[in-house]
Amino acid sequence: MILDGKEKSKKIRSWVKQEVEQIQQPIKLLVILVGNDPASQIYVASKEKACHEVGIDTQTWRFDANITQKELIGRIRQANEDNTVHAILVQLPLPTHLDEKQVINEIHPWKDVDGLTIANQGKLLNQMKGIVPATPLGVMHLIDEYKLDLNGKNAVVIGRSALVGKPLALLLLQRNATVTIAHSKTTNLKEIIKQSDVVVSAVGRGHFITADMIKQGAIVIDVGITRVFGKIMGDVDYQNCLDIVSYITPVPGGVGPMTIATLLENVVECYKNQL
Amino acid sequence: MILDGKEKSKKIRSWVKQEVEQIQQPIKLLVILVGNDPASQIYVASKEKACHEVGIDTQTWRFDANITQKELIGRIRQANEDNTVHAILVQLPLPTHLDEKQVINEIHPWKDVDGLTIANQGKLLNQMKGIVPATPLGVMHLIDEYKLDLNGKNAVVIGRSALVGKPLALLLLQRNATVTIAHSKTTNLKEIIKQSDVVVSAVGRGHFITADMIKQGAIVIDVGITRVFGKIMGDVDYQNCLDIVSYITPVPGGVGPMTIATLLENVVECYKNQL
Repeated sequence: MILDGKEKSKKIRSWVKQEVEQIQQPIKLLVILVGNDPASQIYVASKEKACHEVGIDTQTWRFDANITQKELIGRIRQANEDNTVHAILVQLPLPTHLDEKQVINEIHPWKDVDGLTIANQGKLLNQMKGIVPATPLGVMHLIDEYKLDLNGKNAVVIGRSALVGKPLALLLLQRNATVTIAHSKTTNLKEIIKQSDVVVSAVGRGHFITADMIKQGAIVIDVGITRVFGKIMGDVDYQNCLDIVSYITPVPGGVGPMTIATLLENVVECYKNQL
Repeated sequence: MILDGKEKSKKIRSWVKQEVEQIQQPIKLLVILVGNDPASQIYVASKEKACHEVGIDTQTWRFDANITQKELIGRIRQANEDNTVHAILVQLPLPTHLDEKQVINEIHPWKDVDGLTIANQGKLLNQMKGIVPATPLGVMHLIDEYKLDLNGKNAVVIGRSALVGKPLALLLLQRNATVTIAHSKTTNLKEIIKQSDVVVSAVGRGHFITADMIKQGAIVIDVGITRVFGKIMGDVDYQNCLDIVSYITPVPGGVGPMTIATLLENVVECYKNQL
């Protein structure tokens, strides 16, 4: 069965749209974009578009690639103080002369729409209510939509970033899965995948998970995105896995649209934090 | 080979003692003890004793079991403001009418000697410098003392608490181990243990890990403590595992003394945070 992120994300977006209408106040996401990275420009544009479609206002501050740490932090503090800004997103990666973690941690945790401040990450570790990064939360929404029971299941998360891998491991753990975190230094990845009832891959290496690696009846969630000759490819050889899995996310149309929809949901959460 | 926590903890304590002497200023740990739980009283007494042995001052505030949340929080705020208090430890568990997480999170992160505030937990998740809970950090010190290389090794952490299991998983992950977090809902624990090069158990069920479960040459770290008829027992059947493992911690004399020594180290860290 296909875990249809396109369909579920529509439901979330229409829920967000309703929420925004009921709130009857302007809700604003501020995006901070440093430099001219083409991929970042595309991501920011698609976030702006998604916001506008549900009635969320956006504002984008574009800064020169050589902005100083001090100046950038000053601007974030200004946005923290601004009551008309409810959510702040710093588009990553930042130019290498900037300290990304320090910059992110200047965002007020209530406005931290990406859930990347240490306050929100610490809340996640402690199962306290906070803002959870959109991709992992979107994956959980998809799992919930199909009422998948993870209790006692063996899950592997491939990738250990603070944005995806580690939060996902913690969320799966909250659902009582036995969670393995694998990564580039893992020596027996094939063996681990073969034993897993749930496989979540967030690597970004096109079709590196092939059908022979997957356990019969597994749930496969593909967070990876690679662009090969203009074509979007997931980490998993989707087509050949279809007969083996019980559930699988396509790429595109799986986790991707869930991330955007969950980001919108997080903007509303940020707004509510400030009531 | 035995991972001798008693020996290594002596080294840490003597290092702390030297640090305290060099600092030439009073360093104080404030312990907050609510109610009359006998185990808590013993733990607090042993922490006080360990502090005094290395020249750290202690003060213990004892509150009645029916102290209100508001009053307790008020007292923590008072301790946060007090420049003569460098580290604050709230002895857990608290009586059930108190919100433990809320109480803990009132401690200023710099004075949070147990590393349990969301700020310190979030730092751990993000590999930023902060206070790390004493038991997991003590385990890592022991691993370092014996120069054990975890790169690419399969590690299982049994237990998923915010104090031990989850921080340990993150610390092992930082050393490039492939980490599985197992717990009470795990269905195939024996199988997982048998495949693991590193087994860390933090369950508290006497000798539930028997020799037949352990992989030849594994590193076994026993965080569990059970008292049976006045005798202290670890989670692992130590005696029968000796011929199978490459390294193992005894109970007592393994992780236990490391926890106390690392707590002292954390008090000094808290002091330095405030310089």
